[in-house]
Amino acid sequence: MRGRRRLGRGVAVVGAGMSRFGMFGDKDSKHLFAEAFREMLSTVDKGIDPKDIDALYVGNFTNDFFVRQGHWGPIISDLLGHTPKPATRTEGACASSALAFREGVFAIASGFYDVVLVGGVEDMSKRSTEEVTQGLAMAASPYEVKAGFTFPGVFGAIATAYFARYGAKREHLMNVTVKSHNNARLNPKAQFNVSIRDIMNQRIEKAKSKGGPVPSWRDEKEFLRDPGANPVVAWPMHLYDCCPISDGASCVLLVAEEMAKSLTDSALHVVGIGQGSGKGLHAKEDLTYFEATRYAAKEAYDLSGLKPEDIQVAEVHDCFSIAEILHIEDLGFFKPGEGYKAVEEGLTGLSGSKPINTSGGLKCKGHPVGATGTGQIVEIWKQLRGEAGQRQVPIKDLRIGATQSLGGTGGTCTLTILERR
Amino acid sequence: MRGRRRLGRGVAVVGAGMSRFGMFGDKDSKHLFAEAFREMLSTVDKGIDPKDIDALYVGNFTNDFFVRQGHWGPIISDLLGHTPKPATRTEGACASSALAFREGVFAIASGFYDVVLVGGVEDMSKRSTEEVTQGLAMAASPYEVKAGFTFPGVFGAIATAYFARYGAKREHLMNVTVKSHNNARLNPKAQFNVSIRDIMNQRIEKAKSKGGPVPSWRDEKEFLRDPGANPVVAWPMHLYDCCPISDGASCVLLVAEEMAKSLTDSALHVVGIGQGSGKGLHAKEDLTYFEATRYAAKEAYDLSGLKPEDIQVAEVHDCFSIAEILHIEDLGFFKPGEGYKAVEEGLTGLSGSKPINTSGGLKCKGHPVGATGTGQIVEIWKQLRGEAGQRQVPIKDLRIGATQSLGGTGGTCTLTILERR
Repeated sequence: MRGRRRLGRGVAVVGAGMSRFGMFGDKDSKHLFAEAFREMLSTVDKGIDPKDIDALYVGNFTNDFFVRQGHWGPIISDLLGHTPKPATRTEGACASSALAFREGVFAIASGFYDVVLVGGVEDMSKRSTEEVTQGLAMAASPYEVKAGFTFPGVFGAIATAYFARYGAKREHLMNVTVKSHNNARLNPKAQFNVSIRDIMNQRIEKAKSKGGPVPSWRDEKEFLRDPGANPVVAWPMHLYDCCPISDGASCVLLVAEEMAKSLTDSALHVVGIGQGSGKGLHAKEDLTYFEATRYAAKEAYDLSGLKPEDIQVAEVHDCFSIAEILHIEDLGFFKPGEGYKAVEEGLTGLSGSKPINTSGGLKCKGHPVGATGTGQIVEIWKQLRGEAGQRQVPIKDLRIGATQSLGGTGGTCTLTILERR
Repeated sequence: MRGRRRLGRGVAVVGAGMSRFGMFGDKDSKHLFAEAFREMLSTVDKGIDPKDIDALYVGNFTNDFFVRQGHWGPIISDLLGHTPKPATRTEGACASSALAFREGVFAIASGFYDVVLVGGVEDMSKRSTEEVTQGLAMAASPYEVKAGFTFPGVFGAIATAYFARYGAKREHLMNVTVKSHNNARLNPKAQFNVSIRDIMNQRIEKAKSKGGPVPSWRDEKEFLRDPGANPVVAWPMHLYDCCPISDGASCVLLVAEEMAKSLTDSALHVVGIGQGSGKGLHAKEDLTYFEATRYAAKEAYDLSGLKPEDIQVAEVHDCFSIAEILHIEDLGFFKPGEGYKAVEEGLTGLSGSKPINTSGGLKCKGHPVGATGTGQIVEIWKQLRGEAGQRQVPIKDLRIGATQSLGGTGGTCTLTILERR
């Protein structure tokens, strides 16, 4: 039963591509977007002429600050030979290309355009760590930065509040990290496509070859508890709780629903979209959930007529390990205070009942800020079409997936629900 | 007869407000947006509860660079008590809030939302001139900046090409400047609400009171030819050909067409929207027009079924005097090479057949980058409703107006056509 929200015309995803995510000294935003665009074109089953694209939306957070160049809409437009057709940049911090996706949906649903390319890009790694930290801090609320918070601190505070309310411990966050690495190991596009076990073995081999003392970690958690291997950043956020600095691009092609069949027999239909905004840390009534994600979920479930239990696989915005736990609760997959238990029980693993972040998530796939939102769509595209290779989830009749994005301290959150038909 | 473009649902403007534009050491983006929002609310004839606003779009170019804070969607959302409802930032350099307007139109036309606030803000004046120049240069194509161009240079090159092709002279640009100041003199919100004649008189009074030599300019053009009064910036762009650095905010309220009557008896209906993107200076085939404006015009005329001659009053993006001349040609108001003659003949003046920039334009009203697009809508709102006071154009049955925005070197251009019903 549908609620208040509706779209005048259906919209479908018919192609999806991404560059590898990582730190690339020799590739700028244009190189990376071109890679993503070429892959996207190759995924449109029955082919499409790029000249049929009516409009373009590009999410980018802070290339103006990082590479001293703003106004990326027309730059990407020119790159793709798309001028004089329109190109619009959206910015919602780490949710920037999730917003591009939504605006693309509106542009088609309004009846104005039939074919819209939406994507995102970020080029972060060429600046110093100090500058990147300053740049990312511009996504926070003005009060957070003045109070001395950068993002590890913000999410450290959130984790502390969650621990205090629900009795979770740092050990529970490690379950998220281990799962993310296990999934990313199976994703050749991931920045860290290695398991924690791989990293441990590498370290052991290195120590042996140097003739030094050989670490004797018994399991992944012992490795993660070792302050030499996994130093604290802002308690309880340690190095392996935090996503990396990344460069990358991603894009997907949206078309009016009635056109989808002519382009593919396996389109993903946009059945739910939702977005919310939230206050800064100082004004939140409760640190253990994101009001903006809950609002986004309400909108998206309302439009789709679906419930949390209908979502079979999801990518959520795990900029920090604790964030993944909050999101799976805010989206209604698990009750408040139950998310960390679900992860511990393996329910969110590749073979679990609700696989989360099969790509490796932001933590391991990488987080080139502006590229992350549509990058999540790329993963769901692969999963729902059965094209995820070694990390394909073994769910029968897999049809419905979702992506959730978060910008800043929950300032901008989105939920997108896709259905393969 | 309408063409290919259509909207599934009509959209109307039912309120419009702006802060004063100027340089305000004591007001930041939040102060300015609050001013614009309060005025907007006061213009909704039958009143509206701000709680009825479903979503928010904010245009901003470069607050991240100028005031080290990005992610303005949720900040403005929180300011207005709008959380957890969504807020999205759009960026298209100087066209940023024109893009916000268009996304607001799509969001309603799609059927998803009924009431959307769209606006823009920029806080530029607290940085050094050098930093502002660096910041604005991020709107240019990457090649322009590397070649040593800043915007006065870009538009100087464009003016030179226009002069060479059509035989226009620097004197013709002065006609634009004199008209802009005459209009801005009648606009209490304008940054420079003085005529050139007023400025001349002030200078003469000042010289007399100091007992120094008294200037003997016979008319405005003699003043503008005086290199002491109007120094060259990048030939033929002189000081009075260039818009200023400004702070300011503006916003308008969009609703689904069927709701408009319950809010006002004098709504403006969005009958045309168009947007285009363009290449940088190095790749333009011809410097004497903007391909992106022509494309935007094509889309907007197509949707509206209107022709250039149907537009009765327009605000166009006169970041430099030469830009106004190109735009009135690109929009089809005058033939290529005829725009400068139309200005000389007074056709674009307040009492002319096609009044342009009755507000004083960017040159005199001011150009707080992100606020400019919706600021233009505010002026057309006043004109079409007969509320423009001393600068009201004396056209009978005034019903149709338009606003045109330009970002960068024509990287992003838009046209919006509004009709009072």
